[in-house]
Amino acid sequence: MLIECIPNVSEGRRPEVVAAMADAVRRVPGVRLLDYSSDASHNRSVFTLVGDAAGVEQAVIALFERAVADIDLRTHRGEHPRLGAVDVVPFVPIEGVTMAECVALAKKTGAAIARRFQVPVYLYEEASDNPARRNLEDIRRGEFEGLAAKMATAEWAPDFGPATPHASAGAAVVGARMPLIAYNINLATDRIDVAKKIAAAIRQSSGGFRYVKAAGFKLEDRGIVQVSMNLTNYEKTPIFRVFETVKREAARYGVSILESEIVGLIPSAALAGAAEFYLQLEGFKPDQVLENKLRQL
Amino acid sequence: MLIECIPNVSEGRRPEVVAAMADAVRRVPGVRLLDYSSDASHNRSVFTLVGDAAGVEQAVIALFERAVADIDLRTHRGEHPRLGAVDVVPFVPIEGVTMAECVALAKKTGAAIARRFQVPVYLYEEASDNPARRNLEDIRRGEFEGLAAKMATAEWAPDFGPATPHASAGAAVVGARMPLIAYNINLATDRIDVAKKIAAAIRQSSGGFRYVKAAGFKLEDRGIVQVSMNLTNYEKTPIFRVFETVKREAARYGVSILESEIVGLIPSAALAGAAEFYLQLEGFKPDQVLENKLRQL
Repeated sequence: MLIECIPNVSEGRRPEVVAAMADAVRRVPGVRLLDYSSDASHNRSVFTLVGDAAGVEQAVIALFERAVADIDLRTHRGEHPRLGAVDVVPFVPIEGVTMAECVALAKKTGAAIARRFQVPVYLYEEASDNPARRNLEDIRRGEFEGLAAKMATAEWAPDFGPATPHASAGAAVVGARMPLIAYNINLATDRIDVAKKIAAAIRQSSGGFRYVKAAGFKLEDRGIVQVSMNLTNYEKTPIFRVFETVKREAARYGVSILESEIVGLIPSAALAGAAEFYLQLEGFKPDQVLENKLRQL
Repeated sequence: MLIECIPNVSEGRRPEVVAAMADAVRRVPGVRLLDYSSDASHNRSVFTLVGDAAGVEQAVIALFERAVADIDLRTHRGEHPRLGAVDVVPFVPIEGVTMAECVALAKKTGAAIARRFQVPVYLYEEASDNPARRNLEDIRRGEFEGLAAKMATAEWAPDFGPATPHASAGAAVVGARMPLIAYNINLATDRIDVAKKIAAAIRQSSGGFRYVKAAGFKLEDRGIVQVSMNLTNYEKTPIFRVFETVKREAARYGVSILESEIVGLIPSAALAGAAEFYLQLEGFKPDQVLENKLRQL
């Protein structure tokens, strides 16, 4: 069983504090720290770790222990919106584990954090039973500075823990989601209006696909524009459908696609899905992929 | 390091003999027998095993030991052409191993077999330095019954072992090749002439792609026709290029593609290659595939 967990922590300027959190994660048996990186202007660090359910739960608790000791939101400044010392903790199913099991893990870990550190916890995305609280942006609106007032309203009682913010550590948002694919399509034009119109056409917030977030940008140095996207559920809104839609929308303005790019990691099933679509593959099964077959041994 | 090895043995009618060979392979440490199957009309069995270089070499020698003891080509009858008791042994690079290392392994194993069992060995495909002896069909032409006469000519001196056939076990063909993809494209027509013309257009033997073998067939029960292919090097002749060429050739007859199918296994890199092509992905690297990244840990 392999679960990915990507805790976002509100510290990106003190390397020794971040390194101590990384060490705390590394010491947990059965967990691998894949990567971590800090952004000073955001004053924020992102950890990527993998392991089984028991391992990643223990690693998240170890990370909280250091963060609650070392981070004080009352003096924290940074460009990125945040609610707490450990701000967001998503669990992502990778292999041999269902979304339902990741939801259960998010609830178990959220309850443990609230109990142990007296930090209020909100569940989000797939782990939230409340449609008004699935979206991270909605939960985080008002940030740490507005949290006490927000929590005083009935609708923002936390899922676990005290009804008021932790004095220095704020609150945490814990949940489960599908692997996210960061995907950009570059257009053979410098017309930013075209990129923005296409982004609006495909993103959920303005009527597009359910699992697409998108914005149009200028790539000044190259004299072209980009539709920059997050695909938040590649099974339900697959990458090839997004690509074909962007291509068709661009053609309406006489613009063609120059290239696309995957930023960071992509699950092999998302690539296989694109191959299946374009090659019109019938009856293809994941265990026909040689590497999957070998892993089953 | 993971090498696949697919020995083809000239016995498909005595299950106890085949099972004894499977057991011999299974007893080798570090080797997994993925699959084996027998065909009675071909009177032939195919074993698929994986392991590191030392393991698969040892497994092939264990298989030879049983085959040389149990199989006599002088009384062997079957539809499939064959030269020896263990007829063909290809080594295939899967992960963490180069083609050059598989070529070296084929030579080492071929020499060991010749020395130990006094069976002459021909190298083929990537392992052969002689262009006239790369092709399995050329080496096997004349079969076991014509082998003594063939070996009497200077050009068919074996790469290893005695200059005459083993009395009961004939000769063996050992080599290295890329993973083979069995790929069929079904056309939305019952016109067998269209399938045959397209097969001729795309296969190497009649002027098509270097690494494609193809034939046209009727699928009587479905009232359609099929272009049935073996893709013998998906890196140099990729699946998407074959698909697009078949689509274009079919359009010339007013015929469209109904569907395609992968028979058996396909390396994930072949699927990723198709996704890269159709999504116009730039700068994509194998270690961006989440599962590859995790395997590197």
